[in-house]
Amino acid sequence: MAASSSPLPEVPMELHVANRVKLVESLRQHLSLSSRPVHGYVFLQGGEEKNRYCTDHVELFRQESYFAYLFGVREPGFYGAIDIATGNSTLFAPRLSQEYAVWLGEIKPLTYFKDRYMVSMAFYTDEIVKVLHEQCQQSEQPLLFLLHGLNTDSNLFSKPAEFEGIEKFEADLGSLHPILTECRVLKTDMELAVIQFANDISSEAHVEVMKKARVGMKEYQLESIFLHHTYMFGGCRHCSYTCICATGENSSVLHYGHAAAPNERTLQDGDMALFDMGAEFNFYGSDITCSFPVNGKFTSEQRLIYNAVLDAHNAVISTMKSGVSWVDMHILAEKTVLEALKQGGLLVGDVDNMMIERLGAVFMPHGLGHFLGIDTHDPGGYLKGAERPKEPGLRAIRTSRELLEGMVITVEPGCYFIDALLVPAMESSRTSKFLKSEEISKFRGFGGVRIESDVYVTSNGCVNMTKCPREVHDIEAVMAGAPWPIKKTSIHFEAGYS
Amino acid sequence: MAASSSPLPEVPMELHVANRVKLVESLRQHLSLSSRPVHGYVFLQGGEEKNRYCTDHVELFRQESYFAYLFGVREPGFYGAIDIATGNSTLFAPRLSQEYAVWLGEIKPLTYFKDRYMVSMAFYTDEIVKVLHEQCQQSEQPLLFLLHGLNTDSNLFSKPAEFEGIEKFEADLGSLHPILTECRVLKTDMELAVIQFANDISSEAHVEVMKKARVGMKEYQLESIFLHHTYMFGGCRHCSYTCICATGENSSVLHYGHAAAPNERTLQDGDMALFDMGAEFNFYGSDITCSFPVNGKFTSEQRLIYNAVLDAHNAVISTMKSGVSWVDMHILAEKTVLEALKQGGLLVGDVDNMMIERLGAVFMPHGLGHFLGIDTHDPGGYLKGAERPKEPGLRAIRTSRELLEGMVITVEPGCYFIDALLVPAMESSRTSKFLKSEEISKFRGFGGVRIESDVYVTSNGCVNMTKCPREVHDIEAVMAGAPWPIKKTSIHFEAGYS
Ligand SMILES: [Mn+2]
Ligand SMILES: [Mn+2]
Repeated sequence: MAASSSPLPEVPMELHVANRVKLVESLRQHLSLSSRPVHGYVFLQGGEEKNRYCTDHVELFRQESYFAYLFGVREPGFYGAIDIATGNSTLFAPRLSQEYAVWLGEIKPLTYFKDRYMVSMAFYTDEIVKVLHEQCQQSEQPLLFLLHGLNTDSNLFSKPAEFEGIEKFEADLGSLHPILTECRVLKTDMELAVIQFANDISSEAHVEVMKKARVGMKEYQLESIFLHHTYMFGGCRHCSYTCICATGENSSVLHYGHAAAPNERTLQDGDMALFDMGAEFNFYGSDITCSFPVNGKFTSEQRLIYNAVLDAHNAVISTMKSGVSWVDMHILAEKTVLEALKQGGLLVGDVDNMMIERLGAVFMPHGLGHFLGIDTHDPGGYLKGAERPKEPGLRAIRTSRELLEGMVITVEPGCYFIDALLVPAMESSRTSKFLKSEEISKFRGFGGVRIESDVYVTSNGCVNMTKCPREVHDIEAVMAGAPWPIKKTSIHFEAGYS
Repeated sequence: MAASSSPLPEVPMELHVANRVKLVESLRQHLSLSSRPVHGYVFLQGGEEKNRYCTDHVELFRQESYFAYLFGVREPGFYGAIDIATGNSTLFAPRLSQEYAVWLGEIKPLTYFKDRYMVSMAFYTDEIVKVLHEQCQQSEQPLLFLLHGLNTDSNLFSKPAEFEGIEKFEADLGSLHPILTECRVLKTDMELAVIQFANDISSEAHVEVMKKARVGMKEYQLESIFLHHTYMFGGCRHCSYTCICATGENSSVLHYGHAAAPNERTLQDGDMALFDMGAEFNFYGSDITCSFPVNGKFTSEQRLIYNAVLDAHNAVISTMKSGVSWVDMHILAEKTVLEALKQGGLLVGDVDNMMIERLGAVFMPHGLGHFLGIDTHDPGGYLKGAERPKEPGLRAIRTSRELLEGMVITVEPGCYFIDALLVPAMESSRTSKFLKSEEISKFRGFGGVRIESDVYVTSNGCVNMTKCPREVHDIEAVMAGAPWPIKKTSIHFEAGYS
């Protein structure tokens, strides 16, 4: 293997500068509308390196996502402030000991951080109180807008910044989180370009995996091929999430692949594979699932389920645009799958009645998709006060919002044969009548199919950023050795994305 | 790439059973010697999965090392107890919700854990109080030996187990940590076999990296090649530590490669590379450094420094055996390097005088090596009360103990040209007289060389478990395409390691 053929795109720091500008405008507007004075600092604490338990094993650091969004800083131990009145931004870097130079590398001067991260000023973290008090003209106790709010996917709260001397400031804990989160929901052209790059290299890696999959291999070997391709040729050191490399029955375990269910099964002739893997580039991620038969040829059963899911995937993408409700898209996907299962002889009866009984959730217990960005499950799915739907299936969707131009959302319908859901459905008087148990029993052990693409919403439609083969004949051709060149979108930041 | 050629060794759970037996014997002896009653439970809490900040991004779980040592459990959320009187062991598994089955996989019955981990009994974590009280015949308030002690590499304390109802037990916080740590210091044959496997696959991956290194590549591409080889062909999902892939000047940064100094430099003609990378297999690690010229041919300067370090590496390994002091080995390595630098014209004067002035620490500021096992810096380097040496260089060694049969320790001498150390040494009246500044100035920007092997100590010598090419002519041959087959030691656990 020679040197990488194409050099990686340089992501300009203007991306993060633009994120800050956008936040400041949003915050100013919010303060004006609520007749509050337009001053104070947005103040965030970056992430810290973590040791593994009591050892000196340091986990590879990955910046906290809100901090990454605003400052793009890759080093641990920073704080950042943005002056709402002036828009000036300040980074506070940790003061490193002389030992650091020997063990961990050159101690960079403050000007390095100021220049690299394009902020107005840089100081040390032990100067926070002094600097912010000096810069602030308005009051004795400058106001800090701290980050405090609920992540609706984890049910955890973000941790507001902490530092020595914080009691010398006034704090607003409520305003920043919803506004900053909403900034993250709507992507800029520069953000889209980076997500596109993550999609391009990850799509290419998925194709590599399809080409190399063979009966007799271990699931983790295909994970390794994916990881290697995205790091070697895309410079992606992090994945968006732990790779799900499920074959056979494992493909019905939605989040397979973690430490208690690692990717360690041997690929068997006749298996379906469901590989959900995405690389992260410059903080922004991708989230892509491909499903295919490990031996390269679909059986008629595999084709039936696969095409049911592909129909749902395509139906959603051809309907999505600004103003469309995501709940409606979820329902459209469910309905499309049920129709196809009925067509295929697994179900009987009226599909609308099946929908009333929430039969779709038996085959697709997860939500149709989620926002994607610096987090795989990017925040903002539920605005303050918005309630989660209660019905099976619908209650799992990660947003119930209307789509807006600039959102990036995954479209990931699936169809799984999960005993824990099918057995109760066959026993229930409300749903058993729809299920042709003899036909369905043929799919015991089948696992499942998921097709997942990353899609960004425009005013009059949407763009699928994922470039994997999706049609049955394309997948079979690629697995038989046909080329599938992925034209990588170059990053023309000046010109905008498209 | 077809299916993996050789199947991976199955590590028998007897390895962890033997670790428990060893601990119980040690503890019983300790209690008897101090005339204490020989009963109570060793009680440990396993690790938990961790979310990234406030998100639902879950980091790939890796078991806490003491818990892994005793129980070999790969799942998060467990507790484990060992009855000192009977030797019976009990695992407590988390009770999982029905949702788990859909999202994360089959809910395994308690008998699965009992059988897989070869413990006497398995219960749920909400039964800890009840079970331990019922099993205990001795007292109203059963005694728990909890893990509490200092890790002398991180300066962090291990966290004693916590659970609801712990106040219904007596607790001994002081006895367990030193005894359990000492068990970990002396490896069994089964542990040695696993460390040997990690060494075999990592040695092979290092050779792969040497073969594929080319001017113009990025450092991280070679990291990717290493990671891929060890996962693809060795099933190693974790590395022992973040890969250090340093070229040129970066090779003088001892712990290069972390997030603030990632492996992102382009390989230049004339660079030395210093690659410190090791894979982990079934919890046990390897820790290997190879240094080589990226263009495949040593210059005379590179050969001089490389051979100085290799001489030190070989001198130490040919002297090591049970009873030898590790401090003496460090001094031997320093002295060997200084002799070679004098021979090469960089130093002038009496080497013993240089040693008195601690000149060795200018060129090798780190310790000669460290224990290796479930942690890369395996604990036990300083017994309670032992003091760390104070002198430059010596104060960095991670153990000052006498070697004992069964220890696995890294031998990793190095020679670096670090401005932060060389400049003061040239200015100091005590050391400047030894330094031929004109000669040394030729090595500005050279970086450094480290050669690191994993060695286990026997009664009358030691065995080098690392199988990389070390001689200049071997490295040049391998980089030019010559084969370097690594005969993998098969794991014959019954027969013991050898
Ligand atoms: Mn997804
Ligand atoms: Mn080491």
